[in-house]
Amino acid sequence: MSESFRSSGICPIKFPELDSILHLYQKTRAATLDLISGLGPEDVTPQSMEDASPTKWHIAHVSWFFEEFLLRAHAPKYRALDERFRYLFNSYYVQAGPRYARPDRGLITRPTLKEVLAYREHVDNAMTNFIKSGDAPLDIVELGCHHEMQHQELILTDLLHLLSQNPLNPIYRDQKKVDPITTPAPSWLEYEGGMVEIGHLGTTFAFDCEGPRHSTFLQPYRLSSHPVTNADWLRFIDDGGYQDPRYWLSDGWAKAQQECWEAPLYWQRDETSWNIFGLSGVQPLNVDSPVCHISFYEADAYASWAGKRLPTEIEWEAASPTSIKGNFMESGVLCPRPSQDNGLAQMWGDVWEWTASAYRPYPGFRAPEGAIGEYNGKFMANQFVLRGGSALTPELQMRTTYRNFFYPFQRWQMTGLRLAEDIV
Amino acid sequence: MSESFRSSGICPIKFPELDSILHLYQKTRAATLDLISGLGPEDVTPQSMEDASPTKWHIAHVSWFFEEFLLRAHAPKYRALDERFRYLFNSYYVQAGPRYARPDRGLITRPTLKEVLAYREHVDNAMTNFIKSGDAPLDIVELGCHHEMQHQELILTDLLHLLSQNPLNPIYRDQKKVDPITTPAPSWLEYEGGMVEIGHLGTTFAFDCEGPRHSTFLQPYRLSSHPVTNADWLRFIDDGGYQDPRYWLSDGWAKAQQECWEAPLYWQRDETSWNIFGLSGVQPLNVDSPVCHISFYEADAYASWAGKRLPTEIEWEAASPTSIKGNFMESGVLCPRPSQDNGLAQMWGDVWEWTASAYRPYPGFRAPEGAIGEYNGKFMANQFVLRGGSALTPELQMRTTYRNFFYPFQRWQMTGLRLAEDIV
Amino acid sequence: MSESFRSSGICPIKFPELDSILHLYQKTRAATLDLISGLGPEDVTPQSMEDASPTKWHIAHVSWFFEEFLLRAHAPKYRALDERFRYLFNSYYVQAGPRYARPDRGLITRPTLKEVLAYREHVDNAMTNFIKSGDAPLDIVELGCHHEMQHQELILTDLLHLLSQNPLNPIYRDQKKVDPITTPAPSWLEYEGGMVEIGHLGTTFAFDCEGPRHSTFLQPYRLSSHPVTNADWLRFIDDGGYQDPRYWLSDGWAKAQQECWEAPLYWQRDETSWNIFGLSGVQPLNVDSPVCHISFYEADAYASWAGKRLPTEIEWEAASPTSIKGNFMESGVLCPRPSQDNGLAQMWGDVWEWTASAYRPYPGFRAPEGAIGEYNGKFMANQFVLRGGSALTPELQMRTTYRNFFYPFQRWQMTGLRLAEDIV
Amino acid sequence: MSESFRSSGICPIKFPELDSILHLYQKTRAATLDLISGLGPEDVTPQSMEDASPTKWHIAHVSWFFEEFLLRAHAPKYRALDERFRYLFNSYYVQAGPRYARPDRGLITRPTLKEVLAYREHVDNAMTNFIKSGDAPLDIVELGCHHEMQHQELILTDLLHLLSQNPLNPIYRDQKKVDPITTPAPSWLEYEGGMVEIGHLGTTFAFDCEGPRHSTFLQPYRLSSHPVTNADWLRFIDDGGYQDPRYWLSDGWAKAQQECWEAPLYWQRDETSWNIFGLSGVQPLNVDSPVCHISFYEADAYASWAGKRLPTEIEWEAASPTSIKGNFMESGVLCPRPSQDNGLAQMWGDVWEWTASAYRPYPGFRAPEGAIGEYNGKFMANQFVLRGGSALTPELQMRTTYRNFFYPFQRWQMTGLRLAEDIV
Repeated sequence: MSESFRSSGICPIKFPELDSILHLYQKTRAATLDLISGLGPEDVTPQSMEDASPTKWHIAHVSWFFEEFLLRAHAPKYRALDERFRYLFNSYYVQAGPRYARPDRGLITRPTLKEVLAYREHVDNAMTNFIKSGDAPLDIVELGCHHEMQHQELILTDLLHLLSQNPLNPIYRDQKKVDPITTPAPSWLEYEGGMVEIGHLGTTFAFDCEGPRHSTFLQPYRLSSHPVTNADWLRFIDDGGYQDPRYWLSDGWAKAQQECWEAPLYWQRDETSWNIFGLSGVQPLNVDSPVCHISFYEADAYASWAGKRLPTEIEWEAASPTSIKGNFMESGVLCPRPSQDNGLAQMWGDVWEWTASAYRPYPGFRAPEGAIGEYNGKFMANQFVLRGGSALTPELQMRTTYRNFFYPFQRWQMTGLRLAEDIV
Repeated sequence: MSESFRSSGICPIKFPELDSILHLYQKTRAATLDLISGLGPEDVTPQSMEDASPTKWHIAHVSWFFEEFLLRAHAPKYRALDERFRYLFNSYYVQAGPRYARPDRGLITRPTLKEVLAYREHVDNAMTNFIKSGDAPLDIVELGCHHEMQHQELILTDLLHLLSQNPLNPIYRDQKKVDPITTPAPSWLEYEGGMVEIGHLGTTFAFDCEGPRHSTFLQPYRLSSHPVTNADWLRFIDDGGYQDPRYWLSDGWAKAQQECWEAPLYWQRDETSWNIFGLSGVQPLNVDSPVCHISFYEADAYASWAGKRLPTEIEWEAASPTSIKGNFMESGVLCPRPSQDNGLAQMWGDVWEWTASAYRPYPGFRAPEGAIGEYNGKFMANQFVLRGGSALTPELQMRTTYRNFFYPFQRWQMTGLRLAEDIV
Repeated sequence: MSESFRSSGICPIKFPELDSILHLYQKTRAATLDLISGLGPEDVTPQSMEDASPTKWHIAHVSWFFEEFLLRAHAPKYRALDERFRYLFNSYYVQAGPRYARPDRGLITRPTLKEVLAYREHVDNAMTNFIKSGDAPLDIVELGCHHEMQHQELILTDLLHLLSQNPLNPIYRDQKKVDPITTPAPSWLEYEGGMVEIGHLGTTFAFDCEGPRHSTFLQPYRLSSHPVTNADWLRFIDDGGYQDPRYWLSDGWAKAQQECWEAPLYWQRDETSWNIFGLSGVQPLNVDSPVCHISFYEADAYASWAGKRLPTEIEWEAASPTSIKGNFMESGVLCPRPSQDNGLAQMWGDVWEWTASAYRPYPGFRAPEGAIGEYNGKFMANQFVLRGGSALTPELQMRTTYRNFFYPFQRWQMTGLRLAEDIV
Repeated sequence: MSESFRSSGICPIKFPELDSILHLYQKTRAATLDLISGLGPEDVTPQSMEDASPTKWHIAHVSWFFEEFLLRAHAPKYRALDERFRYLFNSYYVQAGPRYARPDRGLITRPTLKEVLAYREHVDNAMTNFIKSGDAPLDIVELGCHHEMQHQELILTDLLHLLSQNPLNPIYRDQKKVDPITTPAPSWLEYEGGMVEIGHLGTTFAFDCEGPRHSTFLQPYRLSSHPVTNADWLRFIDDGGYQDPRYWLSDGWAKAQQECWEAPLYWQRDETSWNIFGLSGVQPLNVDSPVCHISFYEADAYASWAGKRLPTEIEWEAASPTSIKGNFMESGVLCPRPSQDNGLAQMWGDVWEWTASAYRPYPGFRAPEGAIGEYNGKFMANQFVLRGGSALTPELQMRTTYRNFFYPFQRWQMTGLRLAEDIV
């Protein structure tokens, strides 16, 4: 185990083999480039809202991460391509120096896309040699790859938001033809609760906030076997769910009024029917698909309307199978769609599922020292945990203990919900 | 037990005796009037910020509560003094009809204070007769009294905020002379954790959100015997705590920068020393008093700086003694001051203590049906729980299971903190 | 002529007699008190918007003006009642020292109304003696009186705005019964233009911005004999004037959309008719009255819709009779009403008339030195000139050369319009 | 004269010859393309603030103007390339149909730059044939060319603002080496005033707001022979001009405080000296150049500080020579620089000069009917007139009667000032 490993404090796991890490690095980096093929310099430059970032920035920032925390920190012979990128592509790591103001990321026209790709290649060459040299702290390399995977999903959700601002409804990629899948009627799955072990075991990669693994206690509960579908959501809309404050949290109601919410983000109504704008353009609403692009507030209101509740993240994790198989992102499959039922519960590959849990530290959690410690801990206020993984989530990000988190008003991610109820 | 009791769903407790409820009603109502003696019509009219309300509005609103949920709902012969007050003094009960916009409460110059006091008297007469008649649902009367006690503390904290806007530093009441109390050096109290029972037992009054009582599991932990003091906080300031983002949650840091926080609210620095503006005017900082008027963000940053953490509300409740004795609000004692050590932990009568817990429902919680169900449940997002009770908190509000809650950026309440740490 | 007169630079006019100035002072001060009789401490405390001020503040500020620019500056023996008022009741005179933030004026509950009236009396006693002593610079006394008259109208318009926020529609004073006056059909009055003399002659009081008197040149034009009436305005509304951007200035259209304007301020539509909220409460719309409480943007849009234009202030002044007679404010006559036709044009006593002229300095204008020089000059951007005088305007403020000015989006003043057109 | 000419109402001038108009069209269109050579797709896409537009949008919009008002309106056989561009590239012409929201222009990544250039070429082909056919209303073609010239300057000022957001200080084009020119000491030029004729004569092209030509009357005045220089401005800064409210209009002072102005836009101070960011990157401040990138508020404050005033637009026009010769924009000469003295006054080719005149209609002005009538008239509120022309202004835009206008707080244009004073 490298020194840096211990000092970074990222979940100490078994020593990752150099070859497998190199493979992970190369595969991850290639997957990112694959995502942007077909995008032009115009597409990758603007920023459509403060929450989102330009594709070009994502492309540069994930390289910056490797440069900052590996090449600059641990590779003495490394020569940076441009010292100014250190400032320009830092996202929020206060301890890694000053940062360019987030809302203005879309105003950086230079470096151009071509120049950013050259920067990326420069970092790739240095990283490949560094990993092969055996001197690289492999745990941080692995962290960087998972960091980049997170940005892969963000690239697509941010791009979708940007394209949605364009009245011409542009298409990112045509969706593969998929036969409509009939989602079976959802059933209630029972869990007896009691003492459970929650959190990452520490034998494979995980982010710091997924641990420490610890015991906790659960009351008996039920989970729906499937996420709520668009057909379900239409009933909520038709029943006046968006107009009835009784179902809503107070903050949620205020936000819904202010933003004039009356359907999920990207839903468009024409005279006769609902359509959805997605990465493959405007498509008719598939009523059998899980509902997507809803805020926590909407998820919570829906659950109240249905007389149920959201599951806690503990309930979710305790119920999740240890091995998973779902519909993972492949190029061209970009919208959530019903996956085959696995007999237990459809948990991955469609939508991230809002839970009832505020994003707070597990008992015993301490953020690692240094800039890497800013990865997760400092966001532990005002956000809610999502579990599972969406059609845009890379396969390696889909794990039982993964704690995704967003603000309760945010809707531009691939977010849906699953119902829960108490057994009384 | 009255019918209304069952339907209201407020924690079902033992039948409250008519006489004791009448006594509670009269005592509560008198205490409110006592608070405003000495305030003129000018003082009770304006609203200093959206979070606060005018005293006149508080005075009217707590009467509205009794009128709306008891006299209008259950006393058929009741005749309202003015039908328009039903709209004017509703706070947020959506199901009780439309409401006057909250930020504009300070613009209602009429009814005048005198007229509001007449309205109050009208309700008091009707309520007294109604309670004596034996027809009143006593649980709702009791709820109304506790509701009014909550507003008693708000009257003072909102008034303090209003007076603080006045460069003339006006005085609400002169503080009783109290000899400075030396707070003993804090000690660490150990708790072994394990399975614990949390939440209200249901034999006396409690708000709905204090239950259901339920089992949960705790890791071993320590609590400080005393809240953090002003002397402690000065060390945090002097060590640059307000200037170092490493200690801060990301949202907290953004807020602190935006608002230029560099000390608790109401602290004023002159050339040589710190003073505090309080209800008795500007006073020199008492370094032995618990620090007060800090946000959750500041509390959390302080704990990080100290290498500790905030306790969860479960840890706090599990550690609290079943019978309490503290410094409760008496007329003229308006600022937090060190209370005598009770051998275990100074938990009540100084400051509300921010906990690490987001305000979320307990397992099995369901809000009561109807407007009364809006009391607590709809606020269960984006807020943090505080435990204990302050120098301004009525004695009956001080109980082990009480869950106070505010947004993490709010500072105008009597808010402080106590440190915790893991036993590892 | 006193020294101060020359240094103040306020329009140098003939020496005002001591007795007449004392009479003016006493009459002006008494008129202000008369305005507030019937208002309680609650009514005079809050501030309903940033543009408006509390009555209590007005009452104090006009006294501050005499204290600051006469007693403190020129009466060596004067002893202030409270030094802190110097800061508290300064409005915008930068050179007179720091000021309390304007938007927070409604939060100053103390001094109370009673204390402010005592302050007023203190100043009155000192001022009366000072004037009688013969040492007072009488031109500044006269300026202070005219300053106070300006605030008399503001007291009423600000109070109206405050009361309008109250859903109970409170009444300031019952309006005197007045028989409906039939406004004669308006006629076009022709003016041949050519070289005209404009601006104050300097033989009686005027504000600095009313001069210097100077020559200018006018094309031939026509003015309507009467202001636009409510009946006219209803036709504009019914013809979709508020929905058609063709009639509107670009900034006006943006404002109208943002604020959802669809009628003048204080107009309330019920199922069958229009009512107006005024100082005597809600009254049915009098269609023969001049339209009131419209912004410049609305006035300009109306004129475009009518195929006419607003007159310039030069055209207005050149057409105005040298001696005037109108409906001036008397106690209890508070809403604009049709005045008798004077054969020439109904120019005073109903509404201020928006002109087409931006408020800019006359040729040769220089602001006086010192704080008094801030009176008018520094506001000469972004505002438009109004001419005439309203039903709330003190008689002495009604003069041919008076240049009132407000921002083009403001509507809470007594503002209407008169049409003009070119003779071609 | 074509029918459309009469109906458009744009200043009726002598019949423009078909050949000269075709030449004007081709030259104008080529000049625009020349401006953007060297800009990549990234540079032309984002929008740096609401006041500015992306280069790509400018390129498309000026073509839209020809398509909308000529090809669609008058060329029956014209086939649009893409019907959706009609909506996408309308700027503010309400009567030409709906428009895409201005602040979101930077989010339109598609059509790409290449596609926009194809659209431009499509319009060019159709326009060339249409002009040659003899059926085109030549006055509107000429208007479209002048419209495009206005956007040529905007392309560069908007681009400069965008590039200024980039901490890497990118360069648009290297400036031609120019020998420093010594500006002669300014002298005061006297004008006797009296009756003057102002406004466009109507024999060559002009925008509607430049007329009608009319008589007006001026007092005697002086103008400085040269604009205020950077050296002058440094004295204003050093004398505390930005910190002293006495010199400022009230609105100007508020804006300066809010925006923390302490120098013109694009000035950057390092330890020892001032630099300016411009289209050729960061350059040392040339103290002999006219000061540029100041708001009207700053210009007015400077004049107050200097004990002078701004000239009115009438004074400026009455003093301007009938034939002009200055430093006009050539490719690569992009920053204002001292031009040779022409013996009378350096009036064109450096900076636009803020005047004291609010932008209001001339006597007798009526906006043309229809969408073209929205060109100037609807902006006649809240803006101030600028006269002259800058180093970025096309030569044909430089004429005695041209009335440029901007809001008094705007600074991103090439704006400076010239001093005036009364002769008394």
